[in-house]
Amino acid sequence: MRFFSDNAAAVHPAVFEAMARADRLDTAYDGDAWSQKLDAAFSTVFEREVTALWVTTGTAANCLALAGMVPSYGGILCHREAHIQVDEAGAPEFFSGGAKLLLVDGPGAKLTPTALEDVRGRIRADVHQVQANALSITNATEYGLTYSAAETAALGEWAKSHGLGFHFDGARFANAVASTGASPAELTWKAGVDALSFGFVKNGGLSAEALILFDSSLADGIRRRRKRSGHLLSKGRYLAAQLLAMLEDDIWLANARNANEAARRLAAAAGTRLVFPVEANEVFLKVTADEAAHLRAAGFDFYDWGIGEARLVTSWDQDLAAVDRLAEAISAL
Amino acid sequence: MRFFSDNAAAVHPAVFEAMARADRLDTAYDGDAWSQKLDAAFSTVFEREVTALWVTTGTAANCLALAGMVPSYGGILCHREAHIQVDEAGAPEFFSGGAKLLLVDGPGAKLTPTALEDVRGRIRADVHQVQANALSITNATEYGLTYSAAETAALGEWAKSHGLGFHFDGARFANAVASTGASPAELTWKAGVDALSFGFVKNGGLSAEALILFDSSLADGIRRRRKRSGHLLSKGRYLAAQLLAMLEDDIWLANARNANEAARRLAAAAGTRLVFPVEANEVFLKVTADEAAHLRAAGFDFYDWGIGEARLVTSWDQDLAAVDRLAEAISAL
Amino acid sequence: MRFFSDNAAAVHPAVFEAMARADRLDTAYDGDAWSQKLDAAFSTVFEREVTALWVTTGTAANCLALAGMVPSYGGILCHREAHIQVDEAGAPEFFSGGAKLLLVDGPGAKLTPTALEDVRGRIRADVHQVQANALSITNATEYGLTYSAAETAALGEWAKSHGLGFHFDGARFANAVASTGASPAELTWKAGVDALSFGFVKNGGLSAEALILFDSSLADGIRRRRKRSGHLLSKGRYLAAQLLAMLEDDIWLANARNANEAARRLAAAAGTRLVFPVEANEVFLKVTADEAAHLRAAGFDFYDWGIGEARLVTSWDQDLAAVDRLAEAISAL
Amino acid sequence: MRFFSDNAAAVHPAVFEAMARADRLDTAYDGDAWSQKLDAAFSTVFEREVTALWVTTGTAANCLALAGMVPSYGGILCHREAHIQVDEAGAPEFFSGGAKLLLVDGPGAKLTPTALEDVRGRIRADVHQVQANALSITNATEYGLTYSAAETAALGEWAKSHGLGFHFDGARFANAVASTGASPAELTWKAGVDALSFGFVKNGGLSAEALILFDSSLADGIRRRRKRSGHLLSKGRYLAAQLLAMLEDDIWLANARNANEAARRLAAAAGTRLVFPVEANEVFLKVTADEAAHLRAAGFDFYDWGIGEARLVTSWDQDLAAVDRLAEAISAL
Repeated sequence: MRFFSDNAAAVHPAVFEAMARADRLDTAYDGDAWSQKLDAAFSTVFEREVTALWVTTGTAANCLALAGMVPSYGGILCHREAHIQVDEAGAPEFFSGGAKLLLVDGPGAKLTPTALEDVRGRIRADVHQVQANALSITNATEYGLTYSAAETAALGEWAKSHGLGFHFDGARFANAVASTGASPAELTWKAGVDALSFGFVKNGGLSAEALILFDSSLADGIRRRRKRSGHLLSKGRYLAAQLLAMLEDDIWLANARNANEAARRLAAAAGTRLVFPVEANEVFLKVTADEAAHLRAAGFDFYDWGIGEARLVTSWDQDLAAVDRLAEAISAL
Repeated sequence: MRFFSDNAAAVHPAVFEAMARADRLDTAYDGDAWSQKLDAAFSTVFEREVTALWVTTGTAANCLALAGMVPSYGGILCHREAHIQVDEAGAPEFFSGGAKLLLVDGPGAKLTPTALEDVRGRIRADVHQVQANALSITNATEYGLTYSAAETAALGEWAKSHGLGFHFDGARFANAVASTGASPAELTWKAGVDALSFGFVKNGGLSAEALILFDSSLADGIRRRRKRSGHLLSKGRYLAAQLLAMLEDDIWLANARNANEAARRLAAAAGTRLVFPVEANEVFLKVTADEAAHLRAAGFDFYDWGIGEARLVTSWDQDLAAVDRLAEAISAL
Repeated sequence: MRFFSDNAAAVHPAVFEAMARADRLDTAYDGDAWSQKLDAAFSTVFEREVTALWVTTGTAANCLALAGMVPSYGGILCHREAHIQVDEAGAPEFFSGGAKLLLVDGPGAKLTPTALEDVRGRIRADVHQVQANALSITNATEYGLTYSAAETAALGEWAKSHGLGFHFDGARFANAVASTGASPAELTWKAGVDALSFGFVKNGGLSAEALILFDSSLADGIRRRRKRSGHLLSKGRYLAAQLLAMLEDDIWLANARNANEAARRLAAAAGTRLVFPVEANEVFLKVTADEAAHLRAAGFDFYDWGIGEARLVTSWDQDLAAVDRLAEAISAL
Repeated sequence: MRFFSDNAAAVHPAVFEAMARADRLDTAYDGDAWSQKLDAAFSTVFEREVTALWVTTGTAANCLALAGMVPSYGGILCHREAHIQVDEAGAPEFFSGGAKLLLVDGPGAKLTPTALEDVRGRIRADVHQVQANALSITNATEYGLTYSAAETAALGEWAKSHGLGFHFDGARFANAVASTGASPAELTWKAGVDALSFGFVKNGGLSAEALILFDSSLADGIRRRRKRSGHLLSKGRYLAAQLLAMLEDDIWLANARNANEAARRLAAAAGTRLVFPVEANEVFLKVTADEAAHLRAAGFDFYDWGIGEARLVTSWDQDLAAVDRLAEAISAL
């Protein structure tokens, strides 16, 4: 029973069905009928006009957005444990032409205006130091915490007051929406977000993520960067079809609710073992090596997270019976 | 009836079937069982050990390979009309960190050692000029010509004699194999090729191309660059499955033969209207604007190619009856 | 007697004197009193407010300006034989993050709106092709031709009509001013130029070139790029002093007149041997290998320029008696 | 009386004299007689064959070396307060094509194998994380501490055991040599250093720093990068002359001793006010705002360093009488 990554989950049947329906003659790249529907479909989700581009990875979505926001000599404020800093192999530097990530601390990989200002305020404005040009947050964070609409708006306000672009890594945006109860609009552009990496692959998709631009001035440059970085697939209609399928009947939201519910059950069982509050689909537990081995022997698969901790990630397709068995096993430790 | 691009063609049913079979729990990125089979499967095709990586576009395959071969301050010899120069939005420069494409002439976008030496030989070795570090060819070329195994070997020998890496843009490699009758091995590593972009998407695939490394010293760096450029998909098993499906029963070769046969029929009808000999699945015709309009009015869709010329591209799934109707229409012009 | 490069010439005594005067305590980088005078001094030369930055090479001046004008995914129209294309080791690509040089033909390395439009007009606006974002000219050109104020203005008008930045490589700007009789203003911003690399080193300077920005919106980014590329010297006052010394009493113009006069004398002697009209301080001659050897045996040093041609460059400090001896030797061939 | 930066100091007279001697006809770039002597002159200093290149800034020296050592997708271990991280505007990222600085802690900006291993050891070897490819130290450090030959050798041994390149930012190398009593060889290649940025400008030079390569395999690439980054000056002989003048009679070492002696006197007066031991030419003092104002009112100029601290930097040309007056003023606080 898999709890090691939502990347390992299956693809939602509607995604395969939509790809099969897209399998007829059409124009190449993103000129096809499916790709042409994306802007409208996501504009409905976000209750305003947006530009929506398919890409195949969250790394591409994040870094195309960031490259569009900061000059090559610029800086990006993000958490010290942000995915863009820790697990993207230097992709932000690559896409931006060498911008610097300016690292900020905070529990649970979560940022606050105070923590950000503490870093930004110490940067001299002279040419010797890299300036901050953008802020990037992850919601839900790398540790499964969420930012509320109000928290995001506070960050957005702070960012705008310093002339910074505002990027949102939403690899688990669906889980954040499901968890906070805020609308997609409230969590993003209403809070000052300029660009959102809207994740679908962890949440039942196959190979399509969406990059949502609220700042339309970014669109032309990012479209060119998408091609230049090899991310303009020639049969793009199969990516567009995936995204449209996930939006249909709000599958994306239902899937996230499933994953969150599984995590909630584990969290309830974990009690004081929890390292962080569980607000999305990730559960960090304090467990001894023996306890971890015991859980694995019972058939549960997950990652160790440093010494004495374990990370459990739930997925949209998680079998709740298995979740409950794991919850019992945790309780029984 | 579509003759404007093989990118617009459908996906082979075996590809969808393989993706459905891959749709179960597995490890993320390229640690899954399907991705792990790629090296062996392609090693069989090439009759020697190779490293095979999935990527989603030919641009990514080409430019990851080139970036692995040349320093950022280096140069890449290619044809003036090569896809990497004309239609990849500067991707070689982006992936390599600013290497320069050193442009060489030749009819039909085809290179010869003589034409290459004419350019390379005029570069001073001093630090003021960008040196040639790699050669890149396209086979079949952008104009549908092929390099035979002997021609490729002559280029390879020339490249090695000057210490150059040798990259092969094989967006239509299958068509070249089908057309020349040479083996995949003869057209590549036996001729000195270090890295091959082996195209599948135009030939019945959905979103997976293969990057084949014959020079294994390139593998580690290129794997890291793949991640860094956002091309390491988290559910990579669906890409690997596509490639494995295309190799199964040599679907890739059968598809290319279909496309080539369609082009052959058009070429036979075109006679002296041909701009280039037809050796793969592209047909360049001399037609007046009126003639082009006439063909379009009859339901045939294709691109103009400058003034007085048209480009027709045939696909793996082309209806041969439609091809024959087009052939007749061309004959009747 | 040296005619191979104006880079080999001596330093004007006023430059050394000014450096000696700058040799006292002052602030580091460009905060010193000398550097602070540059804007005003060059604003006088150009009859309007400009931003003037010292750098140590023409390559740095050219490429900082171009990087400020074009996005990393952009293109720069220039002559096929422009110094930035041929002799700067890929510096434009490096500084810009991989922009592409879009090469244009024309005799004597000189560009016309027609030749430029011929290249620009064939670029598709789609994301697959690199767009033209800037124009770069060299005046005097790499072959010693000049652009008049009217010719420059025609280029500027064409550039603006297509939204292009306009860069001017003035490694031999002084020679162009001296030769055309146009004012610095007429040859630059009045003709639409946004940034000028104003060369001093070939013309009697030691290690300081000036980058003149007419488009003040470029200044902040270029200042940051100057530091980032290692071109912000800590004792910048010695560079500023060089430039100020050269402007004092129009030494820069007097020096260029000397060099031009030397070239004029050689041109008069050369007659029909001239490959190009001599409009600055470079003379390209048709000479056989024997003739070249004969001139060298007589003590004259110069470069061969391909087969059957020689390049002679005159300098600000050229001994006119030696020039006349060379003129006689050429006449006598 | 200036104590704010050694960059503000004057130029040693021998440097001007050497430049005047170099002011005659010679070949351009680094083909001249003076530049050609550099390898031999520095080989004598380092008691082995080295490649020595002039550049105009420490930033250029540091970043050319680092770019030669690490791939664009690589990482550079350095102190969190290293000059390359804090005060070079992202130059390491620019020159390397986006490598990441991997930051390590330690008092006084000094690194130890233990602190380095603590960071390096936590990097997963997979493609998701940037690997460590080089180590960069500053000696004397940004806080005026030195590494002894033994400490450097321990770092070198550690670096080699992990396959890392070893770069040495020696903006104040002369001060480190003067302070430790170790030979240039002992502090560098005998300790495993591959490349040294040997600073001269702060120590009496005008515009020439030296990049010393002990690993000769780096030379060709770095020479090309020097040109490509605009750092190959056309009248390079004036840079080479500066360096040769500084080596003559060990002026570089005498100058550093002067600066160190001045700092020693201040340190003796400062007693418990010292933030760090004074081992080179920088003195960090605990002073209140009132005390700082008092010293400034007495005519001493220096930088505040955060709240409650001040940085005093002594120079080669410091008037020791003024130093003694400052020492007394500090004692009297």
